[in-house]
Amino acid sequence: MSAVPATLINGQPQSFWSVHDRGLQYGDGLFETLSCVGGRLRWFERHMARLSLGCERLGMRAPDIALMRSEAHSLLGAEPRALIKIILTRGVATARGYRPAGDEQPTRIVSAYDWPAQRYPEFRLGLTSVPLGLNPQLAGLKHLNRLEQVLAQRDALARGCQEVLMRSSAGEVVSGSMCNLFVCQDEGWLTAPLTQCGVAGVMRALVLEAAPRLGITVRIAAVSEHDVESAGGLFVTNVRLGLQPVHWYQGRPLAVDERGARVQELIDGTLE
Amino acid sequence: MSAVPATLINGQPQSFWSVHDRGLQYGDGLFETLSCVGGRLRWFERHMARLSLGCERLGMRAPDIALMRSEAHSLLGAEPRALIKIILTRGVATARGYRPAGDEQPTRIVSAYDWPAQRYPEFRLGLTSVPLGLNPQLAGLKHLNRLEQVLAQRDALARGCQEVLMRSSAGEVVSGSMCNLFVCQDEGWLTAPLTQCGVAGVMRALVLEAAPRLGITVRIAAVSEHDVESAGGLFVTNVRLGLQPVHWYQGRPLAVDERGARVQELIDGTLE
Repeated sequence: MSAVPATLINGQPQSFWSVHDRGLQYGDGLFETLSCVGGRLRWFERHMARLSLGCERLGMRAPDIALMRSEAHSLLGAEPRALIKIILTRGVATARGYRPAGDEQPTRIVSAYDWPAQRYPEFRLGLTSVPLGLNPQLAGLKHLNRLEQVLAQRDALARGCQEVLMRSSAGEVVSGSMCNLFVCQDEGWLTAPLTQCGVAGVMRALVLEAAPRLGITVRIAAVSEHDVESAGGLFVTNVRLGLQPVHWYQGRPLAVDERGARVQELIDGTLE
Repeated sequence: MSAVPATLINGQPQSFWSVHDRGLQYGDGLFETLSCVGGRLRWFERHMARLSLGCERLGMRAPDIALMRSEAHSLLGAEPRALIKIILTRGVATARGYRPAGDEQPTRIVSAYDWPAQRYPEFRLGLTSVPLGLNPQLAGLKHLNRLEQVLAQRDALARGCQEVLMRSSAGEVVSGSMCNLFVCQDEGWLTAPLTQCGVAGVMRALVLEAAPRLGITVRIAAVSEHDVESAGGLFVTNVRLGLQPVHWYQGRPLAVDERGARVQELIDGTLE
């Protein structure tokens, strides 16, 4: 980062906070990363729906969405693109130990980041042995326990890849460390269900809605390593990358399914 | 907590730190909770061995152990007992995203807590459906991703229990949310291996060493729900509770295996 990102903590411009916050102590919280284009927070409601679901599942107070929207807007400058990251924790611990006391006040951290300069003329995807642990209560959420992803990204670096696919501890291919996965097959596209692990990505949901409008069938079903190896093409998705075509998977060059660009165009063109 | 615990961050008396630390952003770090008696940090070397193993596994710089010892000592007052918690994170993020840049400076947070006043004349143990995800690279470590334990403790509260047993996603009984488990059987004691999940507790290791000296055989092997249900007695262990006898498991009163007190005495009597 060129500098510390502009940050508001509970509405105040500051970037320091109590280390006794349960967000640091236990990873007891959630986050969202939003793509901002021309001063607009894209797909804001979808991000907030996931955040709200997370609060419900973790037994945290429902967030003040209007407040987060105005705080995020206040951090956006004149740059055409930016990223906003919102962290919501259960709050500063009021008692010692894992058990929440119930009287914690949630901590709201909103930061604005420069849009990353990276472009990927060749997007290289590997396969890591770091597994995703199974937990239906946490599956789909974007929570602050992300060590699996950190380990996977360390592995990606060692393999000279931008991203690595991760398998559940049951052996199914679920997603990348920071992206969801779409596998292009003759009969349509395939993406993993996220009922046991993984993050239910906003871009994944957008692709699931847009692709059928262009005549592309998308199946949500278990993805095997064989499915990935025999794919006609692969896309990884998140709100920053959109539908990122994979050019190289585990040493094998991959063709780019040209329908991806049309799906992307359709998604970019929506007013949401 | 009666007040904010006395805290040193990288040696400075303060309790606020950058929210851009990877400890908060991703749970990218480790911790240890030490029992302090009469100004002594009990089993310090064992805690540091686990912390060092964690640093190695996560690819973090090895910690300065002498420094942590002196910082912990400096926080100890005249109270006969206290708890010291040491958090070590990968440091403040120097780039956005899960991938460590490699130039982070680890953050060292040392806090002193009053010894908890709780006593458990009846220690009630339940069984939660919150699973422990499998990950051999993280198994055994005390890392900052503790949402499973937070969810388990919420469940314990709902069940009116101090603690709940957790099963791996493969169905084996592994440990409590904050304790390891020993199952008392006719032929000896039984505790779970921690190669796929769970925390390799310091008190567990001490019991494993002390019990055989009193003629108690301890087997490390997969623990089933049936093993727990048919146990002659149960102990949960951590450095705060020692060998805590379980008086009630899922509605059933349990006898206390009197050998526990002798093992405890042997452990308390060591000079370590």
